[in-house]
Amino acid sequence: ELADLTARQFSRGELSGKSVVITAGPTREAIDPVRYISNHSSGKMGYALAQAAIEAGANVTLISGPTNLAPPQRCHFVSINSAQEMYDAAMSSLSDCDLFIASAAVADYRPASAAEQKIKKTGQDTMSIELVKNPDIVTAVAASRPRPMTVGFAAETQDVISYARDKLTRKKLDVVIANDVSQTGIGFNSDDNAVTVVWADREEALAQRSKAQLGRELIQRLADQLNNS
Amino acid sequence: ELADLTARQFSRGELSGKSVVITAGPTREAIDPVRYISNHSSGKMGYALAQAAIEAGANVTLISGPTNLAPPQRCHFVSINSAQEMYDAAMSSLSDCDLFIASAAVADYRPASAAEQKIKKTGQDTMSIELVKNPDIVTAVAASRPRPMTVGFAAETQDVISYARDKLTRKKLDVVIANDVSQTGIGFNSDDNAVTVVWADREEALAQRSKAQLGRELIQRLADQLNNS
Repeated sequence: ELADLTARQFSRGELSGKSVVITAGPTREAIDPVRYISNHSSGKMGYALAQAAIEAGANVTLISGPTNLAPPQRCHFVSINSAQEMYDAAMSSLSDCDLFIASAAVADYRPASAAEQKIKKTGQDTMSIELVKNPDIVTAVAASRPRPMTVGFAAETQDVISYARDKLTRKKLDVVIANDVSQTGIGFNSDDNAVTVVWADREEALAQRSKAQLGRELIQRLADQLNNS
Repeated sequence: ELADLTARQFSRGELSGKSVVITAGPTREAIDPVRYISNHSSGKMGYALAQAAIEAGANVTLISGPTNLAPPQRCHFVSINSAQEMYDAAMSSLSDCDLFIASAAVADYRPASAAEQKIKKTGQDTMSIELVKNPDIVTAVAASRPRPMTVGFAAETQDVISYARDKLTRKKLDVVIANDVSQTGIGFNSDDNAVTVVWADREEALAQRSKAQLGRELIQRLADQLNNS
């Protein structure tokens, strides 16, 4: 019955005529041609959001770091590796963008200089990698004019909700979707997730369910908000 | 005809009764619960070697970092993440090991301390990661007593053969298989590879071919050497 209701709502195409840009997956920051810094994001949550937005009738651009997932059909798929490449692709996608969902796990820092040749092991027992800050994609999107409705993610291992609320305010976002990646069975690499959706004036907890289902429920809420704003 | 010949040779089981340990794939070195340092190894070459060794009748242990590949059937499969875990698994596998093939792309260094909680972005524009040396697996294997025939890999972007020969001598290996990972279409993540097999007294170049085919040809050479030693 719920599936039926959902199907009927999607058949109305709540995002019909809207342009939605979604970032997904990890980024890879090159240390040298062989080595990189990355993270455990599988991209599943972002791809589920893209699929749900497509089903809701949106014109979807999915900007994805390296994942093992097949790109959804009927979307504009942009494959990138580094945070800087994701930033460039995101900035290029903003004309006519109505809703931007930053679900990618973007590296905050990258090696200050990526070596052109593989770095040889030296006799040293220790070494260090100098890092510089990457551009903050979701902050740049939220500061752009005209500005799409901008949704961030907060994947944390502690103080999840308070950090999400801080991120909402600090980055001037419309919504932050918070999840606790320290819990096993949900979050990074799982097929399930549990999140709390944080707005300036309220929050809503969505208990553990499949990322596909969660993607549809999140897109429904974001579409409602977009259509009523 | 060549395939026929190969099939007949394998049906004789050149590695029948032999124990072969193969490491494959990348390692992941945790920076914190979310971030890690890794490399572009797909594991395809190591899995192809494992498959060929199984077909040659060997008792195969495959110690693998995170890959997208299905473990071969009829092998003892050990899944690990970090270089330290791979080292521990390799050392535990050495009793009765006749042939050890170190095809994994093991991180030379790991973060000096992996943070227990996700490291928060600070206001700083730069930061650095302190690294300490990982144990050298193939050197430890070659120094063990009794000692298996020990085969290393050298994946380089320049001076490939001279580095491979240096590695052979320095780590006291029986064979080093060298490949140039700067060439596109072969090496990391490709289905094809081209290598040069380096012994103390000679070398043999095997031009580009599928990793499956190359795995069979390499196993045949290593089996011949093992059986004639």
